[in-house]
Amino acid sequence: MANSKYEYVKLIEVGDKLMPSTWIVLRTFSEEHEFEKPNDERALKLMNACAKATIEEFPDIVFSYGFSDEYSFVFKKTTEFYNRRSSKIVSITVSFFTSVYVMKWKEFFLDKDLKSAPSFDARTICYPSTEIVRDYLAWRQDVCHINNQYNSCLWMLIGSGMTKSEAQAELEGKQKQDKNEILFQRFHINYAELPAIFRKGSCVFKVRETDSGLSVKRGRTEVVIDHCDIIRDKFWKNHVNILKDK
Amino acid sequence: MANSKYEYVKLIEVGDKLMPSTWIVLRTFSEEHEFEKPNDERALKLMNACAKATIEEFPDIVFSYGFSDEYSFVFKKTTEFYNRRSSKIVSITVSFFTSVYVMKWKEFFLDKDLKSAPSFDARTICYPSTEIVRDYLAWRQDVCHINNQYNSCLWMLIGSGMTKSEAQAELEGKQKQDKNEILFQRFHINYAELPAIFRKGSCVFKVRETDSGLSVKRGRTEVVIDHCDIIRDKFWKNHVNILKDK
Amino acid sequence: MANSKYEYVKLIEVGDKLMPSTWIVLRTFSEEHEFEKPNDERALKLMNACAKATIEEFPDIVFSYGFSDEYSFVFKKTTEFYNRRSSKIVSITVSFFTSVYVMKWKEFFLDKDLKSAPSFDARTICYPSTEIVRDYLAWRQDVCHINNQYNSCLWMLIGSGMTKSEAQAELEGKQKQDKNEILFQRFHINYAELPAIFRKGSCVFKVRETDSGLSVKRGRTEVVIDHCDIIRDKFWKNHVNILKDK
Amino acid sequence: MANSKYEYVKLIEVGDKLMPSTWIVLRTFSEEHEFEKPNDERALKLMNACAKATIEEFPDIVFSYGFSDEYSFVFKKTTEFYNRRSSKIVSITVSFFTSVYVMKWKEFFLDKDLKSAPSFDARTICYPSTEIVRDYLAWRQDVCHINNQYNSCLWMLIGSGMTKSEAQAELEGKQKQDKNEILFQRFHINYAELPAIFRKGSCVFKVRETDSGLSVKRGRTEVVIDHCDIIRDKFWKNHVNILKDK
Repeated sequence: MANSKYEYVKLIEVGDKLMPSTWIVLRTFSEEHEFEKPNDERALKLMNACAKATIEEFPDIVFSYGFSDEYSFVFKKTTEFYNRRSSKIVSITVSFFTSVYVMKWKEFFLDKDLKSAPSFDARTICYPSTEIVRDYLAWRQDVCHINNQYNSCLWMLIGSGMTKSEAQAELEGKQKQDKNEILFQRFHINYAELPAIFRKGSCVFKVRETDSGLSVKRGRTEVVIDHCDIIRDKFWKNHVNILKDK
Repeated sequence: MANSKYEYVKLIEVGDKLMPSTWIVLRTFSEEHEFEKPNDERALKLMNACAKATIEEFPDIVFSYGFSDEYSFVFKKTTEFYNRRSSKIVSITVSFFTSVYVMKWKEFFLDKDLKSAPSFDARTICYPSTEIVRDYLAWRQDVCHINNQYNSCLWMLIGSGMTKSEAQAELEGKQKQDKNEILFQRFHINYAELPAIFRKGSCVFKVRETDSGLSVKRGRTEVVIDHCDIIRDKFWKNHVNILKDK
Repeated sequence: MANSKYEYVKLIEVGDKLMPSTWIVLRTFSEEHEFEKPNDERALKLMNACAKATIEEFPDIVFSYGFSDEYSFVFKKTTEFYNRRSSKIVSITVSFFTSVYVMKWKEFFLDKDLKSAPSFDARTICYPSTEIVRDYLAWRQDVCHINNQYNSCLWMLIGSGMTKSEAQAELEGKQKQDKNEILFQRFHINYAELPAIFRKGSCVFKVRETDSGLSVKRGRTEVVIDHCDIIRDKFWKNHVNILKDK
Repeated sequence: MANSKYEYVKLIEVGDKLMPSTWIVLRTFSEEHEFEKPNDERALKLMNACAKATIEEFPDIVFSYGFSDEYSFVFKKTTEFYNRRSSKIVSITVSFFTSVYVMKWKEFFLDKDLKSAPSFDARTICYPSTEIVRDYLAWRQDVCHINNQYNSCLWMLIGSGMTKSEAQAELEGKQKQDKNEILFQRFHINYAELPAIFRKGSCVFKVRETDSGLSVKRGRTEVVIDHCDIIRDKFWKNHVNILKDK
């Protein structure tokens, strides 16, 4: 086919290739804010279903972790997905995630229409070592815990008649242990017995027959959603393939 | 709230801020390929509706141009949208576009279900001057024309009984004028009379009362979809506000 | 010649190409701090000589401005010097500047040896329009003036017997006019009569016969050092070729 | 001090911070080409002296390797030198190297003046793992060997009366072993007996008392220049501190 004389503008492009031999982590946030407080289980499950579809669609994603309105996807260190171009990886992944979100909405919210077009923003980060990827995931799970504990207290206090600012003042400066006490003493809630999906967030990953602890059919790889601890070593020892270097 | 000891990983981030005082152009491509050939009018109109919704959602987009499976969005030179961070701009825009695409699918394809989750990739480019932005848009409209003329011939030849490779061989090395001749002599098609949406692509932009050539209610700004020539000066002289520097 | 099996590491490189069609400005700072206060004329003249040699060596530098321990070099908008790779441009320019600095030291400091190896750091910035390049240069000349006025007062006060912190306290919050008054009332110095090299800094640029205001031999281009005002329009009207777009 | 109204241009700057937790390697090339062929021992020794001064000046450089007209500097993985800004690291290092080069020239070239101002270009690369840094260094030493063997043959053939293109044709397609044969059969040169500085290049690094194989005074760190093999493990086992991760 013929060429256009305007084609020269193609040259005005600055590269955005991500550093080779590093783990690419993509974190996406929902712009939606009309969910139930402190946790909207249906919204979380819809996000998990989207993450599962995304990990099934893009084979280079090795692990995914989400809570509240965010989800992180870890691409394998050696991925050549879209030639490691950041903008391409960000857009195609988030676009697919968004598509599934809209398409699956009705499965999770039978009684509620999607009012406006939901959207997600995202960015990529590269981590040079497996240790740092684990620390990244530990960080997100720590934040999940800190936020959930705080919000659980906050909304119980609000439910008991306080205004939002009174409740916030009550929690100001309280330590982890104090918050658990508030939940237990005033509301007879044992924090450790709250649903794991709220306390631990959700992990989505591929399990092979050989991985321990989960039953997968012989010779098959399955994508599972779990709410396990990913800060301590145990999980990673049981799933050594996930963050394997090669 | 408490901090996580893993928070240090936040520091491992490389900036992706786009150069200030430049026009940001975002181009997105559909990954979908099951449309009618050579042009699927319903698919084009769905894309146009998405572009219109996108331009209405994000006020810093000043112009948008699309054809076939691609759409370009021009952000104003001084935009501070997401602090000019490339990944954020790319993800939120494409995510919103995708959402609308899925939500509006049924309006355009009454008889056809969305088989799989559609997705779009994208990237940003910065252009330092208005002239280069115009050349960029001229380039895309040139490509629209070149592709459409070629594909119109190709699919008429295939429709007349040739195999795809026979039709390709027939068109090999043919000039613009030759292709118009093929259409006219063999198929009695006057290329210039094909629908403008196929020949010129689609422009989506805001029109104010003061802009000439289009009737907009007094004091109102409306987003219009048009299939005009954006290579020559005329359009830009009639719409000087679109690519104004400030 | 044979290849090395380790050559794969070449691929691990992230591009640093500067945006095309923008003015590249390189600013370099000296690490040397043992000069006379408030201004060391010999040091300034050595820097000027280095800038002149640099502009003669690299034809794509169209203008250069320096004062105190810094020098800025403006590369033409269309330069393809080292394929616009930032690190290459920065290193070769600063390396050449440094070489000349060491080689010419003795011309300016007859009585003083170079004690340690002088070094300069630098970085590039891209500016999309001529207006912004002019504002950049105006900014540096403004800073030259502000610093010089302050330092002239400071060192006169110190010379008159104050300690450094007493002199700083004296100048705290003083406006431009106040500082000129101090110089005039206490020290009988008319600021406007201080040498232009201190007040205005130094401009180094090519002059052709056709440029007004400076006598250059017929048909020749010469590199001149001048201490003119580059904030107002006059200089740029007299030297329209310097920041020409093409 | 007062501010300038032009200061806004400061904002137009795109970050060039290098990825944290990666090894930064800076490679610099000389622009000088008038040395003796195939190897100019004095020029190599001058480069080595500059590398030694550079490693002494910048404590974050942990290893340096050079041959012919190039030198590589490895900064430690955790360096915060100039806040990891690529342009600053490149400029200050190369500028210092250049200064020393000019200042020490006379020590090595007693009978030869520096004709023009020597200059060096450079760029940085980040490597995420120690293995890749070792492969990088192995690559450069491999290239040193390949080039030196080829050039040794080439210049012996030229010395024996061939033109340069005859000599090049003679070597075309020759394997490593063939080239050693040419040297031995025709010129009675045992390649392995050529000076190590030519065959292996030069390593510059810090040695502590505790490192094996080199005698350093008790409690002291010394910078040594050596011509050892850095492809095989032995060197790195004897100097485990050099590429230690922390």
